[in-house]
Amino acid sequence: MKSVVILSGGLDSTTLLYDVVANGDETYALSFNYGQRHSCELKCAVTSCQKLSVPHVIVDLGQVGKELLQGSALTSDIDVPEGSYEAESMKLTVVPNRNMIMLSLATGYAVSIKADGVFYGAHAGDHAIYPDCRKEFVKAMQKVTKLCDWHQVELFAPYLDMDKGDIVMRGVMDLGVPYEDTWTCYKGLTRACGKCGSCTERLEAFEKAGIKDPIAYDQ
Amino acid sequence: MKSVVILSGGLDSTTLLYDVVANGDETYALSFNYGQRHSCELKCAVTSCQKLSVPHVIVDLGQVGKELLQGSALTSDIDVPEGSYEAESMKLTVVPNRNMIMLSLATGYAVSIKADGVFYGAHAGDHAIYPDCRKEFVKAMQKVTKLCDWHQVELFAPYLDMDKGDIVMRGVMDLGVPYEDTWTCYKGLTRACGKCGSCTERLEAFEKAGIKDPIAYDQ
Repeated sequence: MKSVVILSGGLDSTTLLYDVVANGDETYALSFNYGQRHSCELKCAVTSCQKLSVPHVIVDLGQVGKELLQGSALTSDIDVPEGSYEAESMKLTVVPNRNMIMLSLATGYAVSIKADGVFYGAHAGDHAIYPDCRKEFVKAMQKVTKLCDWHQVELFAPYLDMDKGDIVMRGVMDLGVPYEDTWTCYKGLTRACGKCGSCTERLEAFEKAGIKDPIAYDQ
Repeated sequence: MKSVVILSGGLDSTTLLYDVVANGDETYALSFNYGQRHSCELKCAVTSCQKLSVPHVIVDLGQVGKELLQGSALTSDIDVPEGSYEAESMKLTVVPNRNMIMLSLATGYAVSIKADGVFYGAHAGDHAIYPDCRKEFVKAMQKVTKLCDWHQVELFAPYLDMDKGDIVMRGVMDLGVPYEDTWTCYKGLTRACGKCGSCTERLEAFEKAGIKDPIAYDQ
């Protein structure tokens, strides 16, 4: 089938890209610049698409983000919180309705190129923090995605019941994902901070998988 | 309540803006430039917001439209079809997933400014042509909109059971909408063509309402 993968350049969506390509799909990748501090993740997205010879479009939502989507530490001057991914403070990193926006644009793109499916990497670890990664949200999006055009597009979130540790294991064992090509840290400095919620979760995932994280950390 | 109205500058959404303001809501208007030929509708949107003293944001999706949303006569070199709004050829004017994209951005904006509701002007006349104006689409969007953030936003489409004639009647009788401030023609020339599906539908609506359309036509 013909598939569009939403690719942030992070660990989950990069694994998903390798997964969809390994499945033999005619794959197209779509990334978003929404004014995130850690836009260096987009360089990783470019690298992965080059290695896999996947056509890649990066959509610039910078102006939209500035005008419409304020109040998140990922897109404004609010400090990125440190510590556990589950903590209340991590809710500061919610970008208003980010996933519905990205999914709606990916579906529009899928309709344009007559693709059959849109893939995104929501996973079980995200549910507590991000309302738009919850199962009920994904299920409701799957329903509305089928209805939005006469050309039917299906929305897939194959990692919805997996945690990040499961994803790393799948990526290393089954897909050979080079995780040095992924970016996770929310701070967007030259090296990953090792302390923000996103780094903490990544480190825990590699620990759970019993695999050494190939990227360098500040701490 | 605090409300965001999606305002194209056309007849339906302008009536809706007057309706929400008349209801006493703290109203914010949101328009989209998505590379439509008839971007003159946006000038009408500006005029209405100025008259009603409603804060207004116009989001530029031009680059996004170019890169992602091709294949519609409204955004590309395909000729705008003439004749009845119901004809098969009018499907050429579907912009891929336009409504989900606009609704998702409007909801992101609503979450950002802590608004309670998002209003859009889908109506009964659109159902046959635009998959993303169908009742089942709107109902599915209403569900997913409630789930997308911890701050709950509700999606309202109060004209879903009305046709354009009903809307004109409401606008003239109850709300005093100055319809000379609205733009409907898909061709986007200096005067409305009077022949495209959109003009045809507008003229029929005024005829049904028994009211003279205040704008000038080429034909």
